[in-house]
Amino acid sequence: MASTNSQEQSDGHNHDHFIKSTDSQHPANLICTLCEKFYHLGWVAGTGGGASIRDNDLVYLAPSGVQKELMKPEDIYVLSITQQKDPKNRVYLRAPPSLKPSQCTPLFMAAFTKRNAGCCIHTHSQWAVLVTLLLETRPLNTNVFEINNIEQIKGFGKGFQKQGNLGYHDTLRIPVIENTPHEEDLTESLEEAMDKYPDTYAVLVRRHGLYVWGETVHKAKTQAESLDYLFQLAVEMKKLGIPWLGNIA
Amino acid sequence: MASTNSQEQSDGHNHDHFIKSTDSQHPANLICTLCEKFYHLGWVAGTGGGASIRDNDLVYLAPSGVQKELMKPEDIYVLSITQQKDPKNRVYLRAPPSLKPSQCTPLFMAAFTKRNAGCCIHTHSQWAVLVTLLLETRPLNTNVFEINNIEQIKGFGKGFQKQGNLGYHDTLRIPVIENTPHEEDLTESLEEAMDKYPDTYAVLVRRHGLYVWGETVHKAKTQAESLDYLFQLAVEMKKLGIPWLGNIA
Amino acid sequence: MASTNSQEQSDGHNHDHFIKSTDSQHPANLICTLCEKFYHLGWVAGTGGGASIRDNDLVYLAPSGVQKELMKPEDIYVLSITQQKDPKNRVYLRAPPSLKPSQCTPLFMAAFTKRNAGCCIHTHSQWAVLVTLLLETRPLNTNVFEINNIEQIKGFGKGFQKQGNLGYHDTLRIPVIENTPHEEDLTESLEEAMDKYPDTYAVLVRRHGLYVWGETVHKAKTQAESLDYLFQLAVEMKKLGIPWLGNIA
Amino acid sequence: MASTNSQEQSDGHNHDHFIKSTDSQHPANLICTLCEKFYHLGWVAGTGGGASIRDNDLVYLAPSGVQKELMKPEDIYVLSITQQKDPKNRVYLRAPPSLKPSQCTPLFMAAFTKRNAGCCIHTHSQWAVLVTLLLETRPLNTNVFEINNIEQIKGFGKGFQKQGNLGYHDTLRIPVIENTPHEEDLTESLEEAMDKYPDTYAVLVRRHGLYVWGETVHKAKTQAESLDYLFQLAVEMKKLGIPWLGNIA
Repeated sequence: MASTNSQEQSDGHNHDHFIKSTDSQHPANLICTLCEKFYHLGWVAGTGGGASIRDNDLVYLAPSGVQKELMKPEDIYVLSITQQKDPKNRVYLRAPPSLKPSQCTPLFMAAFTKRNAGCCIHTHSQWAVLVTLLLETRPLNTNVFEINNIEQIKGFGKGFQKQGNLGYHDTLRIPVIENTPHEEDLTESLEEAMDKYPDTYAVLVRRHGLYVWGETVHKAKTQAESLDYLFQLAVEMKKLGIPWLGNIA
Repeated sequence: MASTNSQEQSDGHNHDHFIKSTDSQHPANLICTLCEKFYHLGWVAGTGGGASIRDNDLVYLAPSGVQKELMKPEDIYVLSITQQKDPKNRVYLRAPPSLKPSQCTPLFMAAFTKRNAGCCIHTHSQWAVLVTLLLETRPLNTNVFEINNIEQIKGFGKGFQKQGNLGYHDTLRIPVIENTPHEEDLTESLEEAMDKYPDTYAVLVRRHGLYVWGETVHKAKTQAESLDYLFQLAVEMKKLGIPWLGNIA
Repeated sequence: MASTNSQEQSDGHNHDHFIKSTDSQHPANLICTLCEKFYHLGWVAGTGGGASIRDNDLVYLAPSGVQKELMKPEDIYVLSITQQKDPKNRVYLRAPPSLKPSQCTPLFMAAFTKRNAGCCIHTHSQWAVLVTLLLETRPLNTNVFEINNIEQIKGFGKGFQKQGNLGYHDTLRIPVIENTPHEEDLTESLEEAMDKYPDTYAVLVRRHGLYVWGETVHKAKTQAESLDYLFQLAVEMKKLGIPWLGNIA
Repeated sequence: MASTNSQEQSDGHNHDHFIKSTDSQHPANLICTLCEKFYHLGWVAGTGGGASIRDNDLVYLAPSGVQKELMKPEDIYVLSITQQKDPKNRVYLRAPPSLKPSQCTPLFMAAFTKRNAGCCIHTHSQWAVLVTLLLETRPLNTNVFEINNIEQIKGFGKGFQKQGNLGYHDTLRIPVIENTPHEEDLTESLEEAMDKYPDTYAVLVRRHGLYVWGETVHKAKTQAESLDYLFQLAVEMKKLGIPWLGNIA
């Protein structure tokens, strides 16, 4: 990412006004609070995972390779969506002097630009990884996680620009894409999965983790929690021989 | 729940005196403390679950769809039991301006009115859900969880208006009701389960979670903890091939 | 325990000087700190479990039936070992006005009087319970837990009045006694187990939990942690088909 | 270790200037912060495990046998690498008056002197122990843990004096050495494993735990977290019948 990094704000200023605020709900503060919480949930161990918040035209991003529970607002990158024509030539409105932008950036941007998301979360949760591993062992149709007849499914919206949430009997479907050596190279297949599953709020990455988003920070975070709950439940169900799809409905 | 919501206090006042107190034991403060604790126990992930406290005639309720670990007293609903003749036409003494009442409300009310409970807790604990899934796989009699000869059983009272607690050799029985698409629609079967098991302090909801109550906040919370302990133990016992009912007694 | 409770200090004074101290290492403060820690380790859910510290002639005890993470020094009982001739007629130097003494009291006293312990901890840890359940399924010799060739075994002293700790190749043996309906009735079999295994620092109670002690608070707590670590490891080993006794030595 | 202990600074001074600092990033403060975090991760239960930081010529060490979550800077040992010619005759620049040096000291020193590490962490993590137990049950080649095609592998550097990190398809290899009754006696086989696997940043100790290091505290800690994540994942994969080596690459 050195090439991108060299394209940081060229005027030589720190532009700290983008990330300095006494408001705990300011995106730069909120990303830090969220990442600390995610650390204790086991979602961002060893600098893995991350989070990004969009506030109108501005996108706030956790950097690459930092201890997520120790992040400070000074570590946050800021860029503008509208100035973001060329993804190969990303211009940051504000960049920390000695850090690198996250390789997740184009994936977060996909959620913001294609789904108008207000927040996107990336976890390395073991439950997500185990679900993708279990799906891999199935003979057919291994590129989607499906579960139904579990109350927590109601924690998800029906889909992009739709009103209301999924019902108890609805089947929640989360597409799975194959991992790539470079995280940025996931962008194309992530966008394809979003096209194929236009109502999904999340995409699993095989042997890697999860991308999950929502219209607001509240929705992205609670959908992330609900998904992790369902992934953990699904792994335990597998251990106990209980199928993920109920035959009740 | 918009219909109910529209029936909030009609006098246009906030009625914050119901929920403002410097006493940490005030129900509006206590619900927030409890919900934060429950979040870290994994009981209320993704806005699921909730808690309600009754103080004489007044009932304090966590709202619908909020992040439970971040709740504040201002988020609490208050209603009066005695003014609560018609459940379809619920009048709140105090309602937060931009939130919705919990769909759990009629279920909490059942514990308060039928069992004179002082507190009722609703969890989405995975251990509770897994126990209902394990019971579902049995050929017969799948609508009650039974366990005995475990010390933690002594954490439960003998039953409504009875003195003392269960003994070590007693069998703890928790009825299971089937889930419904709308949480309010659980009310009838919850009340039926309470009638059929008049001494129970809890009802499991299949593929959903648990309702548990007690005469006081202390009893509701410690019975919730003891039940979750027993559900987790029961799942682990199942993995290890150990039956839930001992043949010692 | 009402009979015992009625024998609280008869002079009508609160005797708060026994439990009021600004020193965080004072036994009354330390029991509260320990119990809060144990709550988060899952050892004292639902008012189960407890802890007691002996300081020369004085014994400090957590009360019965309280939420262990919320305990305060005012909740602590104090009694004198030397004045404790008749266990049926226990005289407390200090008793909280509205609580009941713990049924664990005679078991804690056994560790103090028979082993000169400085601290005794009682947990309801699920790992301890599961180990006793697994031992119960064996055809023979089910009243002792044995493990060796695990580094954490070195966390235990060699035994009462012996110097040094167990070695890596030594076999740690923890006797198991059968549970009884009333916790006090465990005293006799606990003392028998201490006689039969004079070097043990702990006794498992079937389907119930663990009593573990040490010459100091430090030793009792770290031995409790090491045991819980070994019990959890033993359960996971069982799931993975790995025997508890290595054939290396 | 009494012989070593008697060789503490012979001038009779406390030398507290080595460990007194208001800077949270000072090694003496940082070791305490790290150890408290490790306690809550379950890595240092019951006084097991530890951590050491090297700052140029100075090495800071957690002592033996203390409760790791309660450590204070006053508990830290300091020694000089260059004055450390004879490992049998270790001279401490600063030693706490009533503690003993850690038996891990020569193992930490191996990472510092042979790999120029800035920090070395020793855990008793159950996931590490279980991985060594699972490897022990295999008929062949049981002295190395291997995993690939998991994203978290990218959390490791390519090796000593090499640039960049492992890739997703690379196989992470962690050698396993056999445990010994005395921890110091592991030094020779640890150094042999480092020679045989010159690029490894970690060595597993059978039935004991893990040693893991890095050029900086940041790298040692995040590599420790990534390894523990992979060990836990590997145990869960084993339970679910999923092999550790993918056939994708």
